[in-house]
This record gives sequence, structure tokens and C-alpha cells, in this order.
Amino acid sequence: MSQRQRDALDALLREAPLDFEGDLHALRAQFEEMMAATPLSDDVVRTDGVLGGVPVVTLDVPGTAPDAAVLYLHGGAYTIGSAAASVGLASMVARQAGARAASVDYRLAPEHPFPAAVEDAVAAYRGLLASGLSPERIAFVGESAGGGLTVATLVALKREELPQPSSAAVFSPWVDLTLSGASISEKAAVDPALKASGIRLRAGDYVAGGDPADGLASPLFADLTGLPPLLIQAGSHEILLDDATRLAAHAAAADVAVTLEVTPGVPHVFQGFAGTLDEADEALASAGRFIRTHLAAAVA
Amino acid sequence: MSQRQRDALDALLREAPLDFEGDLHALRAQFEEMMAATPLSDDVVRTDGVLGGVPVVTLDVPGTAPDAAVLYLHGGAYTIGSAAASVGLASMVARQAGARAASVDYRLAPEHPFPAAVEDAVAAYRGLLASGLSPERIAFVGESAGGGLTVATLVALKREELPQPSSAAVFSPWVDLTLSGASISEKAAVDPALKASGIRLRAGDYVAGGDPADGLASPLFADLTGLPPLLIQAGSHEILLDDATRLAAHAAAADVAVTLEVTPGVPHVFQGFAGTLDEADEALASAGRFIRTHLAAAVA
Repeated sequence: MSQRQRDALDALLREAPLDFEGDLHALRAQFEEMMAATPLSDDVVRTDGVLGGVPVVTLDVPGTAPDAAVLYLHGGAYTIGSAAASVGLASMVARQAGARAASVDYRLAPEHPFPAAVEDAVAAYRGLLASGLSPERIAFVGESAGGGLTVATLVALKREELPQPSSAAVFSPWVDLTLSGASISEKAAVDPALKASGIRLRAGDYVAGGDPADGLASPLFADLTGLPPLLIQAGSHEILLDDATRLAAHAAAADVAVTLEVTPGVPHVFQGFAGTLDEADEALASAGRFIRTHLAAAVA
Repeated sequence: MSQRQRDALDALLREAPLDFEGDLHALRAQFEEMMAATPLSDDVVRTDGVLGGVPVVTLDVPGTAPDAAVLYLHGGAYTIGSAAASVGLASMVARQAGARAASVDYRLAPEHPFPAAVEDAVAAYRGLLASGLSPERIAFVGESAGGGLTVATLVALKREELPQPSSAAVFSPWVDLTLSGASISEKAAVDPALKASGIRLRAGDYVAGGDPADGLASPLFADLTGLPPLLIQAGSHEILLDDATRLAAHAAAADVAVTLEVTPGVPHVFQGFAGTLDEADEALASAGRFIRTHLAAAVA
């Protein structure tokens, strides 16, 4: 754990913060550029395709199991980001998990408000199942809004009577669009990446006049009974810390197998800084072990 | 994960529950007998001794590092239990952690109320340090009341300006003697081992007219800043589930490295049923990896 690495990352994020209150088109362009800074490894094969009618980017890492997949849901406050911009982190997850990754280009708000993103994630999962993959050989992974969308999608699968995947891992999940966690204010000073005013604005774009506490928009308020084993990772320097800890408590109360890992002194979705931040490498390795354990358990 | 194993354990516990409201002498005898049911492996060398003036039982497992130790704090609602009765679980922890275990015979209430137990745990740790062990080569482990005592002792070390150990692992920690968690009522029907009325009575014995929310009696209410990496394990079938999840949230907010593992469908301190319950074996193996990682990191 390097204090110097953490300080450098903090300074970097504070220099060019993502201003979610700014113009959405400029914001989308800035985010794509920022994410492109995480290059795709030379050995990863990227294929653009469609799953269940939804555009996806598939990432194949040499040596991974051909019959196992990570359904990956990117972040961006439901309003920015894309499968293409997420390939860096998604492919690192795929490598650690020993599986192909399919990153879903779910529709974004405000053009396509809730529940479009949930519908697209469910459709892509249906597509994966239709391709012949067993649910026991699929894991869900999502970051930030994609982490909330991951949990919402698992809840939606119950309603549609579809089988759950083998496990789900979420990085800094945003599961409460009402922003009711104490960390929203208590961690504001130490969070170099997110501001409550910005994500509140984008939550409004997503729910578009609907109830932000709806269980499929804010799965912290959904019945989580029957969900597969859940790994929740967060940094302690983020306003969404309480989304992670409350999700862990809520899922545990519902008899879900829960692992919560909080890394001190690191920001929102710090896993994206693997290679330059030791804590990111450790968190990704832990997520990979978690996913592989449950994929393997399904085989046995 | 075996449903049959879980059902058998649930039935066993419901047949002969520990009635914390009963006569204390009878209860202590019953507890010793129950704990003796976990036999000490033939290869473990048990030595009765003293550390810092406090009686301890030391457990040496072949092949473990001679320069590393687990300071073990047994359970029993601060009123029953003993180092001798804890040797089964303590030695299993020692084996997984690759270190010797020293199980502390801290004084019990009502004969010796709070803060006698905390004073004894601190004194035993002082004794370990005085024996030449480096704090980086010591881990704390505690179960139930011993888990709460573990966290309270870490808080006490800060006040006494003693170095923190390398890590701490707590199994079903009891960290809120005011019993304010929602699981106290919400998990009452599924908890085969503990009743709120019983532990509330024993909390009264321990605090003996003092404030049950004192941070050294109920470390959920203490400032946890500066604590070492913390592993918290609990079962979802226990009234103390929210002690575990709230401790995780509270420690994370204080920038402590936190790992929370909640195992569904298993009772209070299910780790004690290693060998007959798969989940217990898995949880102990995970605790061992956690402790070894931090002992090893200290060396590097």
C-alpha cells in the first residue's frame, strides 16, 4: 500500500474532476477521453457484437475459459460512458476472472430514462443464455452506476423468473439514487472524484420524474432475497461509501452470501487505476478469485 | 455449502440451547462441557502459562512460525467461558494462521465487571510484546463477546499509545451491549443459539451499572480510526448480525481496511463447527489467509 500512489491519484483526480453538472455532450466526450487513458492490452481481442438485441463489446483474453463469461456493466451515472470506453477495466476483470467479458452498451438517460438500462441488461443476459452459456458459468460485474444496475438486474431476473448467475461483483456501487447515506456529506471533503450535486442531477435524468427509491432504480430498497454471492468493493474516500456498506448489510439480512471489502484512502472505482495503484491490483485480484471460485463451484 | 449440514446444526443447537438467563454456575459448567466437544488435535501442544500477569493457554501447532502469534479472546457474554474451553477453535485458528495462539483467561463478570476484561487483554498483549514479539507479527482474534473485546482492546491500545497488531479477525462480534441492532428482533426466529433477553442480562452483569454504550464496552460507539485491517465474519442466522454489519460500516467510515464476510443460513460463531460444516471450514480458511497475508506483509 503506497501513500505516494494514493496522493498522486488524489491530485490527478482533483485536477480534472468530472463535472456531472456540466454540459452532457462535453461530459460524454471528456469521459471517453479519460477512459481511453486505460489502454487495452495488446493480447486482448475486442469484438463488437449484439447480445439479445443489445450492442455489446466482447473482450477475449488469451487462456481464459471459452465457456465462461462476465457480463460487464460500465459506470457513468446512467447518463455517460459506454462499453467501448470501459474496455480497459472490463478486460482486466476478464483476465483476473479467467473468463471472456461482454460489456453491455445499455441505453443512457436522459434520451432513454429508467428502466431502459435494466431492460437492456436483462436482454443481454438473455442473449448470453441463448448463446448456450449456463447461468452457473456467468458472473455479473459492474462499477458505479453499473454496480447499482448489476444489483437491479439481479432483482429484475427474479421478477422475470430467469436463473441467477453464479455471482456478482460490484465496484463502488451506486444503489441509492435518493443519496440518503451519511457518507454523502461526511466524505465530501475527501472524495476527489464525485460531488453530490452532480450525481443528484443525473439521477433526475435517469428516473425522469419517477420515484428514485424504486427498487429497480435504487436496489438498496429492493428485496434482495435469492441473489447469488455478492462481492462489494469500495474505497473509504468516496461519498458513495455508505451505498456499499448499506448494500452489504441489506443483502446479508436477506440471507445473501456477502463479502464487503473497503480499502482505505482510495477513491471511487479505484480498480480502474490498476497498474499504478497497488490497492487497485489487490482489489482486482480479489475480485478475480471471488468470481473464479463461484464459476468453479458451479462446475463441481 | 450443505443444506443438510446446516439443518443438522440448527437442530442440535435448538435441542440444547445455552440459556443465558439460567443459573450462572450451571451455565458455566454446561458451556465447558459443550466446548470440550471440540477436541484438541493430537498434534497440538498445549501449555498453561502467564502473559503480562494474566493466565493464558498457549497452543502450538506443528509447522507454524515460532515468531508469530495470535492473541485469542474467547466468547461467553463476558460471564462464562475460559481459555481452556476455547482451545479447540483457538488451535484451529492457529493452524490456519500459521502461528502460535495464546488464549487469554481474562477475568469474568459479575465477579470482575468492566473494564477488567479489557485490562487483562491489554496486559496479555503487553506481555506478548515484552516476550520479544514484534507487533507486526501478532494478530488478534476473538469470537462473540471476545470479538467485541478484541475491538475494544484495539481502541484501548490507542489510548495507551501501544502499537497496533498486524490485523484482527472477529467471528460474530458482540460490539453493541445496548442491543440496538434491527437483527436483535428481525433474526430472533432463525437464531438457534442466542436470545436477546439472555445476553441483555449478561451485559448488565458486565457493565455493572455503568454505561453499556461506553466505547470500551461497546466498541461500535468508539472512534475506530487507526485500527489495523479488520476481518469480520458472521452468519445470517443470528441476532448479532447487525453488530457485524454496523461494525464494518463504522470501521470503514473511519478509514480502516475492512473485510466483512456474511455466510447465509448459519448461526453464531459457526466457525466452531469446522469439520462438520463446510461453511465453517471455508470461513476458517479465509480467516487464516487474511491473518497470514498481514503477518507476511509486516515482514516484507
